[in-house]
Amino acid sequence: MIQWQRDIWIDAIILTRIFVHAYFFCALSLFNFDDRYRIYRDGILEEEVTDVTDIWPEDSVAFLIGCSFSFDEALTKGGIPLRSVEQNKCVPMYKTNLKCRSSGSLGGNVVVSMRPVKALDVSKMVEITSKFPHAHGSPICIGCPDAIGIQDVNKPDYGDAVEIKSDEVPVFHACGVTPQNIITESKVSFAITHSPGHMFIADLPSDTVF
Amino acid sequence: MIQWQRDIWIDAIILTRIFVHAYFFCALSLFNFDDRYRIYRDGILEEEVTDVTDIWPEDSVAFLIGCSFSFDEALTKGGIPLRSVEQNKCVPMYKTNLKCRSSGSLGGNVVVSMRPVKALDVSKMVEITSKFPHAHGSPICIGCPDAIGIQDVNKPDYGDAVEIKSDEVPVFHACGVTPQNIITESKVSFAITHSPGHMFIADLPSDTVF
Repeated sequence: MIQWQRDIWIDAIILTRIFVHAYFFCALSLFNFDDRYRIYRDGILEEEVTDVTDIWPEDSVAFLIGCSFSFDEALTKGGIPLRSVEQNKCVPMYKTNLKCRSSGSLGGNVVVSMRPVKALDVSKMVEITSKFPHAHGSPICIGCPDAIGIQDVNKPDYGDAVEIKSDEVPVFHACGVTPQNIITESKVSFAITHSPGHMFIADLPSDTVF
Repeated sequence: MIQWQRDIWIDAIILTRIFVHAYFFCALSLFNFDDRYRIYRDGILEEEVTDVTDIWPEDSVAFLIGCSFSFDEALTKGGIPLRSVEQNKCVPMYKTNLKCRSSGSLGGNVVVSMRPVKALDVSKMVEITSKFPHAHGSPICIGCPDAIGIQDVNKPDYGDAVEIKSDEVPVFHACGVTPQNIITESKVSFAITHSPGHMFIADLPSDTVF
């Protein structure tokens, strides 16, 4: 069965705490691949910067989680074009009313990304993305933005709005921005995150992250 | 990859012609299981009857094709309720603008059945039905009835209209009524079919028709 992804972010945080040494990344190698970061204090986004090496606390831990960008290549190869690429935009992302499973003082709602997909291609979209369980897997919602608390699909909370054509359906996947929502909702005292759309890029082929 | 089902009906007819002896069923056993039939002459629906044993031409061939009812049990077990069962109705069915692959003088458009599914359950619906490639497999269209030429989803061509709630998406599967559309569009001189919703019922458990 499909493994529903809405709880995975808090699980990832728990796993990271347990396997902290295995997941520890050298700050230098982590910071060389991304180019925009967000600094949160007491859950509030304080600033967005391009270099965090000087403010990286020595006793802190970095961890990487999946990103739906990992299946974009497979979608394109499968004949499903990406509106955000066509329009040279970042994918739109939205806060939802879907609650993550809480862990200790950490809790909050899932953030989703949205891709418009032709109604005739949605089954293929589900099949392709279900092969990437570590990069969010199958969509958690197809159509009906209202059903997950999105009032206006043309006003994303992160990223850019993209056109949805009359023969297309908005398809929503769990999103790696969810932890930033958790940081805010849980008022975490200090955290550095990636900036939405500015991901860690590895040299692993995308079909190896199944 | 998903095997798209829109061509399967004409393929089924070709296959049946090739393996005619293997697919030949005794009229008596066929007629004992269904209770309503349609008689077509020159592509026109002439009448609907409950017994065709007296008009069955001795040199004719009967064949059985898949039906989406085969996966309804799996959907229910998977937590996806069926509106048509809740409302004691037949599923709504529609003619579409999707062309089957033609074979000789036979050709025409696909007919689809429709089930309303919660936007949060559509991925699961795709996963469950994709396991039944002989009973239409994955949906061929999700959302956007217009995209397949359905002008008014509340006015089906066969079966009954059912309610679609605000948090639900209309999900369309290829339908075993397609051959009846082909009979009409191809003006077949004589044919007996099942009546939509009145299927051949075997004693095979539904999970054996994967």
